[in-house]
Amino acid sequence: MVGGGQGAFIGAVHRMAIRLDGQAEVVAGAFASTPERSLDSARELGLSSDRSYSTWQEMLVAERGLGPSERLDAIVIVTPNHTHFEIASAFVDAGFNVLCDKPLVTRVEDALTLSALVARRGVRFAVSYNYSGYPMVREMRSIIADGQLGTIRKVIAEYHQGWLSTDLAAAGDKQASWRGDPALAGAGALGDIATHAEQLVVFTTGLTIESLAADLRSVVPGRQVDDDALIRLRFIGGATGYLSVSQVCVGEENGLTLRVFGEHGTLVWAQEHPNQLRHARGDGSVMIRSRGDSASGPAARSATRLPPGHPEGFIEAFANIYQGFFAAIRGQPDAVFPSIADGVRGVRFVERALTSARHDGGWMSFE
Amino acid sequence: MVGGGQGAFIGAVHRMAIRLDGQAEVVAGAFASTPERSLDSARELGLSSDRSYSTWQEMLVAERGLGPSERLDAIVIVTPNHTHFEIASAFVDAGFNVLCDKPLVTRVEDALTLSALVARRGVRFAVSYNYSGYPMVREMRSIIADGQLGTIRKVIAEYHQGWLSTDLAAAGDKQASWRGDPALAGAGALGDIATHAEQLVVFTTGLTIESLAADLRSVVPGRQVDDDALIRLRFIGGATGYLSVSQVCVGEENGLTLRVFGEHGTLVWAQEHPNQLRHARGDGSVMIRSRGDSASGPAARSATRLPPGHPEGFIEAFANIYQGFFAAIRGQPDAVFPSIADGVRGVRFVERALTSARHDGGWMSFE
Amino acid sequence: MVGGGQGAFIGAVHRMAIRLDGQAEVVAGAFASTPERSLDSARELGLSSDRSYSTWQEMLVAERGLGPSERLDAIVIVTPNHTHFEIASAFVDAGFNVLCDKPLVTRVEDALTLSALVARRGVRFAVSYNYSGYPMVREMRSIIADGQLGTIRKVIAEYHQGWLSTDLAAAGDKQASWRGDPALAGAGALGDIATHAEQLVVFTTGLTIESLAADLRSVVPGRQVDDDALIRLRFIGGATGYLSVSQVCVGEENGLTLRVFGEHGTLVWAQEHPNQLRHARGDGSVMIRSRGDSASGPAARSATRLPPGHPEGFIEAFANIYQGFFAAIRGQPDAVFPSIADGVRGVRFVERALTSARHDGGWMSFE
Amino acid sequence: MVGGGQGAFIGAVHRMAIRLDGQAEVVAGAFASTPERSLDSARELGLSSDRSYSTWQEMLVAERGLGPSERLDAIVIVTPNHTHFEIASAFVDAGFNVLCDKPLVTRVEDALTLSALVARRGVRFAVSYNYSGYPMVREMRSIIADGQLGTIRKVIAEYHQGWLSTDLAAAGDKQASWRGDPALAGAGALGDIATHAEQLVVFTTGLTIESLAADLRSVVPGRQVDDDALIRLRFIGGATGYLSVSQVCVGEENGLTLRVFGEHGTLVWAQEHPNQLRHARGDGSVMIRSRGDSASGPAARSATRLPPGHPEGFIEAFANIYQGFFAAIRGQPDAVFPSIADGVRGVRFVERALTSARHDGGWMSFE
Repeated sequence: MVGGGQGAFIGAVHRMAIRLDGQAEVVAGAFASTPERSLDSARELGLSSDRSYSTWQEMLVAERGLGPSERLDAIVIVTPNHTHFEIASAFVDAGFNVLCDKPLVTRVEDALTLSALVARRGVRFAVSYNYSGYPMVREMRSIIADGQLGTIRKVIAEYHQGWLSTDLAAAGDKQASWRGDPALAGAGALGDIATHAEQLVVFTTGLTIESLAADLRSVVPGRQVDDDALIRLRFIGGATGYLSVSQVCVGEENGLTLRVFGEHGTLVWAQEHPNQLRHARGDGSVMIRSRGDSASGPAARSATRLPPGHPEGFIEAFANIYQGFFAAIRGQPDAVFPSIADGVRGVRFVERALTSARHDGGWMSFE
Repeated sequence: MVGGGQGAFIGAVHRMAIRLDGQAEVVAGAFASTPERSLDSARELGLSSDRSYSTWQEMLVAERGLGPSERLDAIVIVTPNHTHFEIASAFVDAGFNVLCDKPLVTRVEDALTLSALVARRGVRFAVSYNYSGYPMVREMRSIIADGQLGTIRKVIAEYHQGWLSTDLAAAGDKQASWRGDPALAGAGALGDIATHAEQLVVFTTGLTIESLAADLRSVVPGRQVDDDALIRLRFIGGATGYLSVSQVCVGEENGLTLRVFGEHGTLVWAQEHPNQLRHARGDGSVMIRSRGDSASGPAARSATRLPPGHPEGFIEAFANIYQGFFAAIRGQPDAVFPSIADGVRGVRFVERALTSARHDGGWMSFE
Repeated sequence: MVGGGQGAFIGAVHRMAIRLDGQAEVVAGAFASTPERSLDSARELGLSSDRSYSTWQEMLVAERGLGPSERLDAIVIVTPNHTHFEIASAFVDAGFNVLCDKPLVTRVEDALTLSALVARRGVRFAVSYNYSGYPMVREMRSIIADGQLGTIRKVIAEYHQGWLSTDLAAAGDKQASWRGDPALAGAGALGDIATHAEQLVVFTTGLTIESLAADLRSVVPGRQVDDDALIRLRFIGGATGYLSVSQVCVGEENGLTLRVFGEHGTLVWAQEHPNQLRHARGDGSVMIRSRGDSASGPAARSATRLPPGHPEGFIEAFANIYQGFFAAIRGQPDAVFPSIADGVRGVRFVERALTSARHDGGWMSFE
Repeated sequence: MVGGGQGAFIGAVHRMAIRLDGQAEVVAGAFASTPERSLDSARELGLSSDRSYSTWQEMLVAERGLGPSERLDAIVIVTPNHTHFEIASAFVDAGFNVLCDKPLVTRVEDALTLSALVARRGVRFAVSYNYSGYPMVREMRSIIADGQLGTIRKVIAEYHQGWLSTDLAAAGDKQASWRGDPALAGAGALGDIATHAEQLVVFTTGLTIESLAADLRSVVPGRQVDDDALIRLRFIGGATGYLSVSQVCVGEENGLTLRVFGEHGTLVWAQEHPNQLRHARGDGSVMIRSRGDSASGPAARSATRLPPGHPEGFIEAFANIYQGFFAAIRGQPDAVFPSIADGVRGVRFVERALTSARHDGGWMSFE
C-alpha cells in the first residue's frame, strides 16, 4: 500500500475491505509523504519492519527485487490524486498489479500513457470506483442488460454531500485542504464525486456518453475548485441524463442516488440505503427488491455475503471491488471490477467537463 | 364554472375543493364545448336549469345582466389552455372575479393584455397553481422568508410523471389528446407541469429568475409536444437551480418534489407525502416536521384543517387556493393565493423555455 | 346534526366529509349542550334560523313533524359517548336514519336495545368507523377475501398517539376532559381508539374474535381512564393477534397501522401514509401498491376520487363512509359502511376488555 | 473456533467480523461434528494443518498444552445450542477466554454452573448478542442513560422473520433442522431470536424485568418448536413492554425493531436500516439521527468506522462485539460487550417463557 497512513480515511477503508474476506493482507507499505510518518503508520499497522518503507520509491526498489513467490501480488495506491501517475506508472512498469484510487490521474494524456503501459506490461489494473461493488448496483446492471427496461430514456445521478458547506480548508482540515487545491486534486467535486456518478451511470446502463455540458460553480467564498455542478449528458442512441453533484448541500451526507428510466420500467437506487432497489414496471407495479432476495441474478448474488435483512454496507461493497480484482489476478477471465478503461474515461470526463465550463457550459463531444 | 364537464378530471377536483369548506357553491355553468354536453353536465351536477348554459357566451350575457346580489361572485375557468384568454378576458371585462386554470394563456402578449385588463377592471384574479396551497409548502416559504436557510444556494424541483410513457393520444385518451396538440396546449410537459414547478420555486424561495436555459425533448415517437425537459435557472443574487420535468417516467405518478439548499439549512418536500417536511440544519441535525405540529408558523396553520397525523391531501391543498381567493373577494388585504402575476410569469416562463430550446438550449434572460 | 358545535374537532370533520361530494348538506342542527352555544354554532354555520335548534329534543319534535319531502334524510350524532344512546334511540324511534360517532354507546345492553330498535324501525344506521373508508383498507379487504394471503396467521394493529402524554384534562383541555371522565366516555384509549383498531381488523380480515385478554394501564398520574393497552385476540379458526393502543407515546401523532400475516403473503398499511399498501408474497416479492393503481379492485376504485400520486387523506376516507351511508339510504343493496352491528361489537369489545382487565388480564370469550 | 464449518452461515459471519479490524485471526479450529468435515473446513480456510483439529476435544487437549505466548487468546463457539455447555465448560475450565453464540446453553442450571466456572477461572466470556454492537443501539442506550427520555413508559421490541413460513426442516434445510429440533435447540423462535430482542431491551433501557408472560405457538403444521410468540414484560419501576417474535411472517427478512417510549421522548430503531435513529421529543420535534453525526455520544462514536452516509451493517456491528471482547482480553476495564450475565439472563428468559406458556400464558416472576 502506498499512502493511507495515520488519519487517512480512505486508506483505512481499503484495509478493512482487503481484510474482510481473508483473501489478502497488507504486508508492505509506504504510507505517507514523510519517512517518519510512513514508518509510524507501518508500525501501527503491525507490519514487519523489513517491509515498512520510508518512501514508495524505496518500496519499489526493494519489492521488485523479490522472487515471484515473495513479491507483492498487488500494489494499492491511495495517495492524493496528483501523485497517482508517477507512482502507478513506476509500479506497473515494474510488473506489479495495481489498484489505484480514483480519479486515476489528473491529465488525460497521463491516463492514456498509463493505460498503454498497463497493456504493454500485461498487469491487472483496477480503479476504486467502489460504488459499483454494491450488489444492488450489479442487479441494476443485470436487469438493464437483460432488456427489462427496454430502451433507456433518461438517467439521473445525484451525488450530494454537505461536508464542504463551509470553508473547511481554511479551518485546517487536512482532507479538505488537498482536495481543495487545484494543483493537487485537479478539480473539486467534479473529480472527487462526479466521477463516481459517471462511472455508476455507465456501469449500470451500458450506455456510451456522446457529449456533455457542464455548469460548475464554487459556492463557498474562497474556494478555488468547483463545489457544485450540473453535468448534462447525451448518450449514443438518444438517451439523455444529468449528474447533479454538490458538496455544499447542508444536511446531505453521502447522497449518491441513481435513477434509470426506460421504456418499460424504472430503477431507483440510493447509496445510503443500498440493500434495496425500487423497480417500477410498465404495468403499473412497483417492486421493492432486497439484496439477496430470491429474484437476485448471479451478479448480485456473487457480491452478497449475508441473507436479506442483514444489512451490508460501504465496506462490503468496497470489498467486492477487491474480490473482482483478486479474481482477475488469479486468472479468472470474467472477473468484474472497475478497470483502467473506467479510470481513463473518468479523467476524460473531468477534462471535458472543465472544458465545457470554460466555454460557458457548452456541449462538448466526449471522445 | 366554464368547462369541467363530464369526464373532466380537473373540473371535478375544483368542485370538491369549492365544496370542502362550505364557503361557496357552483350555481351556474357552461361545462363543455357543445351545448348538449354542457347541459347534460349541468343536469348531472344538479344545477337549476335557468343557470345551466349551453355556452360560456350565453352565460356571460345572462349573468352580467343580474343584479349585484344575484350575480356570480366568481367565475372558474377550467377549459383547455388555448381558450383561456378569450373567456377570461370577456368575464374580467364584465367585472367578474375569475379563477383560471394554469397555464394562464398560451401567448405572452395575451397574458400582458389580460393582466392589464384585470388591473383596469379591479377584479380579483387567481390562477390555480394548486401545489402552493399545501400547508408544508407554505411552511417552507415562511422558514425561508424568516432567514433560517441563510443565502439560498441551489434549488431543485422535479416533476416526474409516467402517464404519457406511451402514446395515449393515439390510443384515444381525451385529456392526452388536447394536451398533446401544440395548437391547443401551447406546450407539453412544459406548460402542464413545469409551470407548477416554477411557481413552487418562486413561491417558496422568493427568488427572482434572472435567466433560464431549457433542454426539451419529445421522447415518445409521434408526440408533437415536449414530454421531457431539463430547465436550468439562474436567480438574481447568484443562486442556481433546475427543474427536471417529465411525463414519460414509467412508475412515477405525480412526483413533484422540491429541495432548497441554503447556507444554513436544507428543506425537502415531496407532494406525494405532503404532510411532512424535512429540515436539515447546519449543526448537523435533521428534523422531520409534520403538518400542524407545534412549530408550524401562522401561514401553515391557517392552511390546515386537521391535527398532525390526520393526513390532508391534494383536494385540501386545492381548497386552500380557493380559501385565499374567497378571502380576497371578501376584501381581506393579505389573502394568499396565486395571482395573475404568477400566471403571467408562468406564460413567460414557457415562452422563454421554448425560445431557449429553439436556440439549442442556450441561456435566455427572463425579463 | 346533533353536537359538533364551536370548537368541536370531529363535528367539523363530519361537515367537510358531508360537503365533499355534494351529495348532502347540513341543514338543521342542535350543536351543543347549551341552547345559547347551539344557536351560536348554527348561526356560524349559516343555517336557516327555523332549523337551528336549542336542543336535540326540540329538533326531534320539530323535524319529525315535517312531511316526507322536507324531513331530514339522516341525523348525525357527534356528541360525547354517554349521550349517544338516548339521542340515537329517540331519532331512530322516530324513523330517522342515523349516523352516530363511535363508540356507539357505553353499555352492551344499550347497544343491543338500540340495535333491536333499528331493526324494528327499519332505518339505516351507520357508525363512524372512518378508517375503514380508506381505499387501501378496502383493497386489503378485497385481497384477503380473494384468498391471496391464504390462511391468516397473525394480525397486528397498533394505534399509538401521544397527545395525552401529559395531563391535558387537568390543564383544561375540553376534549381531553370528557374523554378522561369514566362516566362520560366509558373508557379511555380503549373506547376512543382501540375500537377503531378492532373494527379495522375485523373489517379487513373477515375474522371473528373468539376471545380476548386485555392489559390496561393509566400511565399518566391522575388519569382515571386507561391510556395504554395491549389487547390480545384469538380468532375462530386459529389465527391470533393483538392491538397495541396508547395515547401516551410521545411523538406519535395518529399512528394507526395494520399488519396482516397470512400463509401466502403479508399486507401492511399505515394510516399516516394511507395511499400506499405493502404486499409481500410468498415468492419473496414485495409490491408497493398505490391508491388508484391499475391493480386496484372495484372496492378500492369506487372509494377513490383522484389518480395515483394525488394524495387523498382523512377527510376523503371519512367522506367514503358517508357515501356508503347515503347509497344505503338511496336503497343501494350492497352499500359498504360500518353498520350498527359493528357498533354493537365495538361496545362489547370495550366491555370484554374492561372485564378482562379486572380479572388480571385473563382471557374472556367474546360472544 | 469450534463449529462454523462449511455451509454454516454464522461461522462465516464470525470470521468476517474477526478479520474486519485486523485485531485477531482464526488460527485453529474444529469446525464440524465429523472429523472429515472439520478438516475439510480447516483446509478451505487455509489453516495450518497442525492446528486443524478433528474434534473440539482434540483441539482442547492440544491447545491447552501450548505455552502462554502460543496459546489461543480466545475460543469462539458457534455450534448448535445443545452443545454449548459441554464445550464452553471445558475450554473455560482450561483457562481459555470464550465467545459463545447465544443462547448460551439450553438449561438454567447449566447457565449458572458455567457462570460460576467463569468467575472461578477468571476468564473473559462473551455471548454473541450481536445486535447490541450497532452504533445507534449504543446511542439509544446513552440517550436513555442520560435521562433524556425521562421515566420509561413502554418498550416494544419486534423480531419478525419469514424464512420458516413453510416447513423447511421437512424440506431438508440443515439450519432449519437443528433449530427445529427441541432437543438440539431448546426452543424455536424463543431461543433463536426472542433472546436477541430481550437483550436489546435490557441493554438499551437498563430496565430490569420483574415478570413475564408468554404466548407461544407453532404455526406451521408439523413444527415441534415455537415459531411465533408474544411475550409481555413488566419491569421493576412500573414500565411495561412486549416482544412480538415470529419466524412465519411471509415477507419479513430480519425485522428486528425497538421502540422505547418515555415520559419526555421516544426512540425508534430498526435493524434493517441501522444507521438511523428516530428521536421524538416532548416538545413535538422529531429528529432523524444518523450514525456518526455530530450529536453522537462517545459510545456510538467508538463503535463507528465510517463517516455518516457511508452505511455500516451487520458485520460491522458484529465486529464491535469482538472489539469489546478483545479490549477486555487486553485488560481494558470498561470494555462493552455482552457478558455471561447476559447469557444467563437469556437462558432464564427462555425457561420462564416456556414455563409461562405451559401455564396458559400466565405471569411468571423473572428472578
